[in-house]
Amino acid sequence: MLNFKYFNPTKIVFGPNTVPELSSLIPAAARVLVLYGGSSAEKNGTLGEVRRALAPRVVQEFGGIEPNPTYETLIRAVAQVRAEKLDFLLAVGGGSVIDGTKFVAAAVNFTGDPWDILRHFGSNITLALPFGTVLTLPATGSEMNSGAVITQQASHTKLPFNSPLVFPQFSILDPTKTYTLPPRQLANGVVDAFTHIVEQYLTYPAQALAQDRFAEGLLLTLVEIGHRVLDQGEDYDTRANLVWVASLALNGLIGAGVPQDWSTHMIGHELTALYGIDHARTLAIVLPANLEERRPAKHAKLLQYAERVWQLTQGSEEERIDQAIARTRHFFESLGIKTRLGDYGLADDAVDSVVAQLEAHGMTKLGEGRDVTPEVSRRILNRCR
Amino acid sequence: MLNFKYFNPTKIVFGPNTVPELSSLIPAAARVLVLYGGSSAEKNGTLGEVRRALAPRVVQEFGGIEPNPTYETLIRAVAQVRAEKLDFLLAVGGGSVIDGTKFVAAAVNFTGDPWDILRHFGSNITLALPFGTVLTLPATGSEMNSGAVITQQASHTKLPFNSPLVFPQFSILDPTKTYTLPPRQLANGVVDAFTHIVEQYLTYPAQALAQDRFAEGLLLTLVEIGHRVLDQGEDYDTRANLVWVASLALNGLIGAGVPQDWSTHMIGHELTALYGIDHARTLAIVLPANLEERRPAKHAKLLQYAERVWQLTQGSEEERIDQAIARTRHFFESLGIKTRLGDYGLADDAVDSVVAQLEAHGMTKLGEGRDVTPEVSRRILNRCR
Repeated sequence: MLNFKYFNPTKIVFGPNTVPELSSLIPAAARVLVLYGGSSAEKNGTLGEVRRALAPRVVQEFGGIEPNPTYETLIRAVAQVRAEKLDFLLAVGGGSVIDGTKFVAAAVNFTGDPWDILRHFGSNITLALPFGTVLTLPATGSEMNSGAVITQQASHTKLPFNSPLVFPQFSILDPTKTYTLPPRQLANGVVDAFTHIVEQYLTYPAQALAQDRFAEGLLLTLVEIGHRVLDQGEDYDTRANLVWVASLALNGLIGAGVPQDWSTHMIGHELTALYGIDHARTLAIVLPANLEERRPAKHAKLLQYAERVWQLTQGSEEERIDQAIARTRHFFESLGIKTRLGDYGLADDAVDSVVAQLEAHGMTKLGEGRDVTPEVSRRILNRCR
Repeated sequence: MLNFKYFNPTKIVFGPNTVPELSSLIPAAARVLVLYGGSSAEKNGTLGEVRRALAPRVVQEFGGIEPNPTYETLIRAVAQVRAEKLDFLLAVGGGSVIDGTKFVAAAVNFTGDPWDILRHFGSNITLALPFGTVLTLPATGSEMNSGAVITQQASHTKLPFNSPLVFPQFSILDPTKTYTLPPRQLANGVVDAFTHIVEQYLTYPAQALAQDRFAEGLLLTLVEIGHRVLDQGEDYDTRANLVWVASLALNGLIGAGVPQDWSTHMIGHELTALYGIDHARTLAIVLPANLEERRPAKHAKLLQYAERVWQLTQGSEEERIDQAIARTRHFFESLGIKTRLGDYGLADDAVDSVVAQLEAHGMTKLGEGRDVTPEVSRRILNRCR
């Protein structure tokens, strides 16, 4: 097992009808900015519930945070917090709204150009506003971690940052809030969580027995519920499991003490920044190709994945690995998520463009072995065609 | 899935040679009381490392916290903290020292009779001193939770308490610290952790899919490493997995959103309080008998346990359950831990004595269905003979 530090102070409040608990979770004297995305939070009643729970506090609102939240939008929220002397943030939405809120929390008291936070991947954050979340879309795990990804629209740059100062103080996880989500967002959530798990699991054996079992348990659960999420509508337990698995997939737990490989995410970010493809769909494109390209280095864990997640125990080792990767791709496709660049209208020149952006953003030594150079990324992308 | 709240702010520092990190984990101006048990912490060098890391802070020491830490001993530590105006506690030891430190942390500023903390199971704690731990014995999970068990020697009373105010701020988990443990304590640790997991898992199905997979993963890991822990001496990865599994077994995670059954622990506590049997050994006595006695109510989960933990898929349902319980008992016995009251020199009158103590301590509605009355406890104990 690798050495590790683990710390996660976010309080989880899980269950239906938990939004009213905001009244005790947020200090009575707080001056609150509620951040949200599009019109659905208003239409489905969540914003109304939030307003009632926060009364009689001073509450302002900031809507319009887009999927892949942009620096250009968020910097306006920063200005509002500063001008109105607000001191507590509440994200109401999914990973984009929560990621955006983390950036606002870190930027409000940041001296200098706030984009420097991204340039330094968050290492220069020294202070952040306290904030909580009301999760409405299970996928990214942002509700229970200290990371975020922000896009600068002007330069097509999508960069992550991380700081222990931007853990949510609390997150309200009410699975019934997912009932109004369209199938596309639900399927994206399954694939996003699945890939988060794989990127912390499918590297090389590190004698981290419990972490492996946990990762496999989460993957097995997603395989078990994936189609039920799409087909069974308002089934509470199905949605509750999706919500909790997505949080556990990226709350630091399964990644503690193991090597990690975020190359699929980093390549995927460039696809989103350049072509606007949904984050989860970029992962569905890149992950199977990445596993194919790097199967020698991942051989032992691919075999373990084949046996424990897909129950593949027959045939040669290479056959089992073939099947495990094929099952992965088929799982994504069966959820309605295409896994080839061509499916999204991209031609071969996209490969060059993505590789150029990876180089421009310093993403030149990715993966658990830091050996995913631009040339390896190119080979992965060629397998995505 | 049941509704739940989950909160665990303990920072884990995991790896060899991590004791020096105390110098940054504890405030520079802190006045520290180091609490420990017997002479092993001094002999194996851990206390020396701790002293070096804490210098030049004001540091006092309090040794002699016994297994099943007693109120009578701890109240002397409380007096020392008050008299010397100490403001930070550091537990160096296993579950007993850490549990005792939690009590001291809660009692120092408690108004009135500190035993009232136990009478109210901790619900009346309003303030606690901050503290951290250096773990030397993996078993109880106390290093990453907010519970403790304290014994009043005079009255043979062993009671638990719990409060979010007594989470350790940090715990240093250095698996090499377990190298000097005798086999008896290592075997106890495996059985204690195993039983913690079972008591949060083996109840009735609650559609908590990830929690079940996590619990099964921890049990599978203990079965995998149990004998290696005893046989392979200073094998780092084996000990690292034991340490981390024992923490994960009782840090709130696998118990979030599921029914729980602590009847084995509560019956076991009375055996320890009356007869001084090691905590883990009382669990090894009670657990198999408890599963036997209550198998109708636990039928579905017993089948799941049989299949997923012991790979028992052949035979009738009752045969598989028979085998799963037998495997459990055999696992404990194979670690050198006896599972019958008679093995510890107890005769039939012990059953009456334990039942009387359960009644005296209000333990009259135990178990996930609150249906483990004294009469059911008696039947369980009769199966322990």
